[in-house]
Amino acid sequence: MQSSRHFTLRLSCPDRVGIVARVAGFLADAGGWILRSSQHSDPVTGRFYMRVEVDADTLGCDLPMLTKRFAPLADELDMDWRLADSAVRKRIVVLVSRQMHCLYDLLERWRSGELDVEIPCVISNHEDARGLVEWHGIPFHYVPVDKTDKEVAWQALDTLFRDAQADTMVLARYMQILPAWLCEAYAGQILNIHHSFLPSFVGASPYQQAWERGVKQVGATCHYVTADLDQGPIIEQDVTRVTHNDAVKDLVRYGKDIEKAVLARGLRYHLEDRVLISGRRTVVL
Amino acid sequence: MQSSRHFTLRLSCPDRVGIVARVAGFLADAGGWILRSSQHSDPVTGRFYMRVEVDADTLGCDLPMLTKRFAPLADELDMDWRLADSAVRKRIVVLVSRQMHCLYDLLERWRSGELDVEIPCVISNHEDARGLVEWHGIPFHYVPVDKTDKEVAWQALDTLFRDAQADTMVLARYMQILPAWLCEAYAGQILNIHHSFLPSFVGASPYQQAWERGVKQVGATCHYVTADLDQGPIIEQDVTRVTHNDAVKDLVRYGKDIEKAVLARGLRYHLEDRVLISGRRTVVL
Amino acid sequence: MQSSRHFTLRLSCPDRVGIVARVAGFLADAGGWILRSSQHSDPVTGRFYMRVEVDADTLGCDLPMLTKRFAPLADELDMDWRLADSAVRKRIVVLVSRQMHCLYDLLERWRSGELDVEIPCVISNHEDARGLVEWHGIPFHYVPVDKTDKEVAWQALDTLFRDAQADTMVLARYMQILPAWLCEAYAGQILNIHHSFLPSFVGASPYQQAWERGVKQVGATCHYVTADLDQGPIIEQDVTRVTHNDAVKDLVRYGKDIEKAVLARGLRYHLEDRVLISGRRTVVL
Amino acid sequence: MQSSRHFTLRLSCPDRVGIVARVAGFLADAGGWILRSSQHSDPVTGRFYMRVEVDADTLGCDLPMLTKRFAPLADELDMDWRLADSAVRKRIVVLVSRQMHCLYDLLERWRSGELDVEIPCVISNHEDARGLVEWHGIPFHYVPVDKTDKEVAWQALDTLFRDAQADTMVLARYMQILPAWLCEAYAGQILNIHHSFLPSFVGASPYQQAWERGVKQVGATCHYVTADLDQGPIIEQDVTRVTHNDAVKDLVRYGKDIEKAVLARGLRYHLEDRVLISGRRTVVL
Repeated sequence: MQSSRHFTLRLSCPDRVGIVARVAGFLADAGGWILRSSQHSDPVTGRFYMRVEVDADTLGCDLPMLTKRFAPLADELDMDWRLADSAVRKRIVVLVSRQMHCLYDLLERWRSGELDVEIPCVISNHEDARGLVEWHGIPFHYVPVDKTDKEVAWQALDTLFRDAQADTMVLARYMQILPAWLCEAYAGQILNIHHSFLPSFVGASPYQQAWERGVKQVGATCHYVTADLDQGPIIEQDVTRVTHNDAVKDLVRYGKDIEKAVLARGLRYHLEDRVLISGRRTVVL
Repeated sequence: MQSSRHFTLRLSCPDRVGIVARVAGFLADAGGWILRSSQHSDPVTGRFYMRVEVDADTLGCDLPMLTKRFAPLADELDMDWRLADSAVRKRIVVLVSRQMHCLYDLLERWRSGELDVEIPCVISNHEDARGLVEWHGIPFHYVPVDKTDKEVAWQALDTLFRDAQADTMVLARYMQILPAWLCEAYAGQILNIHHSFLPSFVGASPYQQAWERGVKQVGATCHYVTADLDQGPIIEQDVTRVTHNDAVKDLVRYGKDIEKAVLARGLRYHLEDRVLISGRRTVVL
Repeated sequence: MQSSRHFTLRLSCPDRVGIVARVAGFLADAGGWILRSSQHSDPVTGRFYMRVEVDADTLGCDLPMLTKRFAPLADELDMDWRLADSAVRKRIVVLVSRQMHCLYDLLERWRSGELDVEIPCVISNHEDARGLVEWHGIPFHYVPVDKTDKEVAWQALDTLFRDAQADTMVLARYMQILPAWLCEAYAGQILNIHHSFLPSFVGASPYQQAWERGVKQVGATCHYVTADLDQGPIIEQDVTRVTHNDAVKDLVRYGKDIEKAVLARGLRYHLEDRVLISGRRTVVL
Repeated sequence: MQSSRHFTLRLSCPDRVGIVARVAGFLADAGGWILRSSQHSDPVTGRFYMRVEVDADTLGCDLPMLTKRFAPLADELDMDWRLADSAVRKRIVVLVSRQMHCLYDLLERWRSGELDVEIPCVISNHEDARGLVEWHGIPFHYVPVDKTDKEVAWQALDTLFRDAQADTMVLARYMQILPAWLCEAYAGQILNIHHSFLPSFVGASPYQQAWERGVKQVGATCHYVTADLDQGPIIEQDVTRVTHNDAVKDLVRYGKDIEKAVLARGLRYHLEDRVLISGRRTVVL
């Protein structure tokens, strides 16, 4: 992450000769100093992906103006694109249930400034986290999920998210399955941390499943949420070694450490506009 | 691995009070200096597992005598047990197809003395490896597998294995599925290296599957072969990080390094009598 | 960690024939069900190390009685030994400065019950952590370290530690060097997390040093504190991959995650009486 | 690595606005389809690094012509640069002593086509490797190093390397220290695999040093050789976990696996023109 103010351009488009030249040329003409740039050509899909950080002070214009000027080129090359300003903090809403290791972890990163975002609120289907969240000066909303009518909760969730004007929803060990309509309404905006190395051990009790299968490593996966449970594009994964000596509860314990680290990395990539979705895969530039 | 000659006692039995005391007491009475000992109690199955290395020179008897003396205690405690002599080299038959990275790796370990075994022969369904194997002074057997009648090959394999008086069959990237009867005849004696982090990506083309799912790490698994494809007890696993930049052939390439290392470690554990099978799981002492 | 109440016997002594038999025999005679046992023979030093967890309910006696009965055997075999009761929680005093990632991490583990200890107090040379600590219901002591006379602080620290009747002092990113007399008074009781993969980058600014040397991985080390800075016996270490793209501040950020995990693992090993010091090395049973 | 023929442009120069635009514009004007591109700006040194792979068939010219055309731009921007043709195989000379794990590993990669290079010869100060090397159809040169007059050997080495018209010298566990003049004559062309996680354990017997210090992980480092022993720019590193149970010989054994993998990765990066030296550091694009 750059400290100086920068604009981040993120795009994907059909691959062809000269894209980098056109984009870099546009930025150079605008006087833009490139702080960081990366790109990827996928030979299977024929699609090109690019992310550029430009020093905002070297450009003779603000973000709306840059956006306006870039649009014709974007149209010509049929880009799916976005420009972001590092001075505008992203807003994330965090959802938790009763386990709080990911929440503590995110709060520490937020409080120390490592995670440079606004957290307009934390939402939970339990009251357990209220005290900690409010101590940090963050509003806490208790949204119980009634098994016989979950829709009330989903509507409340949706309203809270909209009211918060948030960009991203982080399921930090939120033990409820969101409805398809919510997943689709916020496609690419909802991150989940799943407590297994996907695609192994989809669904409930992955550590129990892992123990029974006798695997020698357990892991965690940060992915975008889609209507298909645990099938969304993977952003980040990691594993840790276990042995026959470890009971299920030990796997759970090791897993917590991996979950925290993987969610934090995945969220960071997402917030830095480094993640581009490519079907079931992600390009992390 | 100890350098001095030692006897290795490996056992499992229903757990109860006093097993360690009885076993250690037996060995102490025989004057046996314990070089290494480890044990495991599985609270789920109620079974106890133990492995002890005893300095052979400190015992006033040879292996058959020790075996005879230990039998009554083993019977009393209802043990599944085995005594091995480090001076008697294990005999392994290696099976390969066309990819030779695991074979090279095993041959180097064998030649340098790291892998302290006899290799009575290498068997393959292709001729590619003949030269290298024979250069190492090891007999090579070409056993083609006829798609319309594979049984001929399996019979030949079985005969070669028996004639070789081998203990262990190592499928070092052998791209054929052994028949159930062979898997069952040599249960706990056949090791395979599967090119995925099981239980993900069972069966063919695991790297292609992994690429399509967009995982961020790929792995390999060394397991005992059972009649259920890729479902046998796992001995060892490892993974390595990949990115969107890696094509399937890159995953294959990274995977080769993991396969070599995981097979070598799993085989070593097996040869040192450190692996005890517990249902679908292994205890690696 | 076992859930049922257990006594943990930890010992080291000169190696000889029959130690396991004597110890296991003693426990079996007392009716003790062994939940977990591990041992290690160091051929270089000729010393034997052992750790046994015994189900307390299967023993017909309490800890003082068991201690009394075991003493003669311990004397005979010249043991350095200790018996602990899982029902008696360890007491740890945590020291921090301004960085709070390790503190947050420990507090979450403590609050969730994963870290089953008493934390009689947290001590710091800054006021920053007071709010968080006190919110958790833990007393906080501000002990400033005056550069011109640090001894006042060390005396205060010593008094607080004694008054807390604590077993263990955890330097969770405490950025002061303890005096030799304190290190020696609590040898084997003070754990530090050093932000490098020791022995690389001893002393100040290890991440800056790591960046300048251009290493491709950075790490952290949990070790016992001795009078020689960063030279104490290592309990646990880990590393993470970095690239040329990472500035010093990125190394610091990656390092924080490793520090948290390594300190938590090292502390857990210590609290479970699994760590035996052997000169400059540790045996982690 | 791309399968289609491509030209690789590698450059570094003082950073400024518009470099990417100029380079990409030059390539686009030539009709060049960019297969892969990466760049790095080092804010500490103010230097810019770039590597581009261009599909050779899309360019209307051959390498000498492209080189000629690019030169003016390179001069203008004060570049340190190089253009390579994937159709021209690199030539590597491998040096070994008695341990052959890295040699076996490289030979397998070479034979399977993974390592797409010419190996004009293998050189050793021992005869041990001759058979294996010659079996692979590669010339083997025995160049003994006389302790009382090593210069004879270094001259022979230099002559063999020149005669082989090789680009790169790979010290694959070559247990001799090259003289400063040789290191300087081939700066950036000699790769070594050191059997420790540098900067820990410089010099002789790193595994013995590691055991004595009681580290919990051991590693290996692939670096460019400079006149300062084990101080050259690091290309790649990795580590593996060890325990108190592992004797020095076990560390040596684990280390071999890390050495093979790290050397292979570092060599590959080097051969793909991905490594740019930046003082004591490397940029791996």
